[in-house]
Amino acid sequence: MQHYAVLNSIGALDASTKGGFLRAPYSEAESEAIAYIEQAAIAGGLLCRRDLAGNLIAETQGNFSEWVDTGSHIDTVPGGGNFDGAAGIVAGLEALLAIHRSGIALKRGLRLRIWRGEESATYGVTSIGSKAAFGELNPSALQHAYEGQSLAEAMRKQGVDPEDIRTGHAAMPDAERDGITAFLELHIEQGKVLECRDRDIGIVSAIRGSKRSWITVRGTFDHSGATPMGVEFRQDANLAMAYMLVELDQLLQKANAEGADLAQTSGLINPPEKTNNSAPLIDNAVTKVSGAACFSFEVRGCNANQVDSYCNQAFELVRETAARFGVSVEIDTFSDQAGIAELDAEIQQLLATGCTKLGFSHISLPSGAWHDAGTVAEQLKSNCSPIPVGMIFIPCRRGISHSPDEQSSPEQISKGASLLATAMAEIAFN
Amino acid sequence: MQHYAVLNSIGALDASTKGGFLRAPYSEAESEAIAYIEQAAIAGGLLCRRDLAGNLIAETQGNFSEWVDTGSHIDTVPGGGNFDGAAGIVAGLEALLAIHRSGIALKRGLRLRIWRGEESATYGVTSIGSKAAFGELNPSALQHAYEGQSLAEAMRKQGVDPEDIRTGHAAMPDAERDGITAFLELHIEQGKVLECRDRDIGIVSAIRGSKRSWITVRGTFDHSGATPMGVEFRQDANLAMAYMLVELDQLLQKANAEGADLAQTSGLINPPEKTNNSAPLIDNAVTKVSGAACFSFEVRGCNANQVDSYCNQAFELVRETAARFGVSVEIDTFSDQAGIAELDAEIQQLLATGCTKLGFSHISLPSGAWHDAGTVAEQLKSNCSPIPVGMIFIPCRRGISHSPDEQSSPEQISKGASLLATAMAEIAFN
Repeated sequence: MQHYAVLNSIGALDASTKGGFLRAPYSEAESEAIAYIEQAAIAGGLLCRRDLAGNLIAETQGNFSEWVDTGSHIDTVPGGGNFDGAAGIVAGLEALLAIHRSGIALKRGLRLRIWRGEESATYGVTSIGSKAAFGELNPSALQHAYEGQSLAEAMRKQGVDPEDIRTGHAAMPDAERDGITAFLELHIEQGKVLECRDRDIGIVSAIRGSKRSWITVRGTFDHSGATPMGVEFRQDANLAMAYMLVELDQLLQKANAEGADLAQTSGLINPPEKTNNSAPLIDNAVTKVSGAACFSFEVRGCNANQVDSYCNQAFELVRETAARFGVSVEIDTFSDQAGIAELDAEIQQLLATGCTKLGFSHISLPSGAWHDAGTVAEQLKSNCSPIPVGMIFIPCRRGISHSPDEQSSPEQISKGASLLATAMAEIAFN
Repeated sequence: MQHYAVLNSIGALDASTKGGFLRAPYSEAESEAIAYIEQAAIAGGLLCRRDLAGNLIAETQGNFSEWVDTGSHIDTVPGGGNFDGAAGIVAGLEALLAIHRSGIALKRGLRLRIWRGEESATYGVTSIGSKAAFGELNPSALQHAYEGQSLAEAMRKQGVDPEDIRTGHAAMPDAERDGITAFLELHIEQGKVLECRDRDIGIVSAIRGSKRSWITVRGTFDHSGATPMGVEFRQDANLAMAYMLVELDQLLQKANAEGADLAQTSGLINPPEKTNNSAPLIDNAVTKVSGAACFSFEVRGCNANQVDSYCNQAFELVRETAARFGVSVEIDTFSDQAGIAELDAEIQQLLATGCTKLGFSHISLPSGAWHDAGTVAEQLKSNCSPIPVGMIFIPCRRGISHSPDEQSSPEQISKGASLLATAMAEIAFN
């Protein structure tokens, strides 16, 4: 755990203000954290290099045709914690060094990858480094700016040439990709299933994608006292929205009861970014029947077809409700990331066996959040087979992440690292 | 209608910005509009004076022990129209002058009152002038500020001493109050019932009071992907709020179906003034289960007991729903104005007879908005009988008020003024 003591000083924000960490994608702080891990890896006898996207690769010496990879990220959201991402890096480094120190001959090489810029909170795009590794970063992302600096500028400052990304050049050679026998990522759960179920380990079965939309309702502004109740007189946008939210909740419950596995959230309702100084939302008032309403609508699921089919039903329901209330509705889908319907079955089995061997309680669950492992799982090798991917979740206190209160205990991290080492050794030795 | 041509130049806002009018309570613009009406009244042979609260009184000459009063206000909300209030003043002046010009001997004197500062949009208190006339303005209102100026300062600039109000001194002598045989107010409907029902006149049966509360819901912020659906994992403030709004709507429908006459509105949901830069609402996000939500809850009704009893049921329902969703709830009632359960029955009958005589179609309806007439109707004379009060509504286009789009046609205003003159003459002559 001494690595945490060092990482705790890199990108730490002043606790008197927001607290927590800020290691933005392609920032000085992210580079510093990567350099620290690099030094520790070299000190432990590993070789280190960077790919064209600036991702760090720390690997065992030797000329292997097949490799067992692990990796995660070390950047954070503004005010984030030091476990989301970092836990997977620290555990991965410890796993590699433990296997390396054992002196047992490897059949397959071992690698730790630090993917740069996984968090989307600053530049609005997720998994920058891992997408760039496979030539899948949309070049438009290079123009996204954070605090007045474009991603392209940020990359240049950290010694990465954005031209490679602009041209769609994969930062990882095809042969290197084809040689990955397995990719494993350890991550904090960012949920409270493990804590509620009192398990040491979550074996990730799938990764939820997400489809996000703004749903905007237009009614008619009217005097709240002088306008009788009922749709003949009132086209109440807020009320129509409330009925939509309840009916969507009931639709979701029905879909899940019938076998779907979806999560649905409306986190923002009439939010400031849609309201401030901007008609019509700003014209709502305590004493008016509301003429405008707006809410975010996110559906997450591992099976992209299931998500799409459900969203079509949901949008139809919203339109029907709008018609019933005499209001108009606009649906603007602004983000659509397909999920990973199933992570590698053999790796899931290997991890379950590992838990049994180590005496760790475990549960199988989907990942609700997107991870670099998802980007890796989307890739096909030259022979058209996917890269086998597995994920290990460790508990985090009260499910909190992206917050200074993010916390996993040394024991929880240690158990996860032990399982990761056991699984990687199993693949590397046999 | 020539009065409108003059009033249209007083307090008019630049149409290139907000448009409409701003004649704030106790502003230079309000004083100028009052002075214009005063000059017109004097020119027509009426006597004019001000009471201690700065309200204008224009009256027929003569020593009467009983009087027939009419009145309304001439201030506006920011960006308001020139009919809300002004229509009653212009119609009242025309009615007085028409009766005066007829030369028929009066048994009772005639008065027009311009109550100052009826609109609450600037200083946050309604019917300032009429309340002060009866010694019922809460002295704390004097400290309310608009654009950096307290109401007390605004009053002083318009020649009114706020000390009289601070000490609870009624601006209208008791004897003057006791001599009011009837008070009539003509006003635009501020709703669309007359337009929808195609009537010339609304005879107001009662005035709705209002009880207004903020309902604040606290849940738990969680990752929207990593947190399973269901109350075991999610304490979703926005979702709980949506269920509350729908259940409150159903409760209201049931209450009205069982004979209540209530209007219920949640005009603001998660509004900027509760959100901007202020936790916890600002911490909501597209990708989080919401930890906080807030909505305004207004119930209007003529019968104060009915409003109170319904609100108690509504608050109980909200608390039950909160418990079901594992969220906490706070209810803060910030405004409570009792309604006027019934305006004077004889005056309503007189107005109905007047409509028949004049060939105007009419309908009986409650006033959804508060008016100075409500303040007058609350007063008791020395003999403990109320001041008899009646109200005439005229249609306004699409029910719009408090907007530059506020509009009543010359014909609609003229019909209202004819009815007002007919009713006042009936009382004054007999």
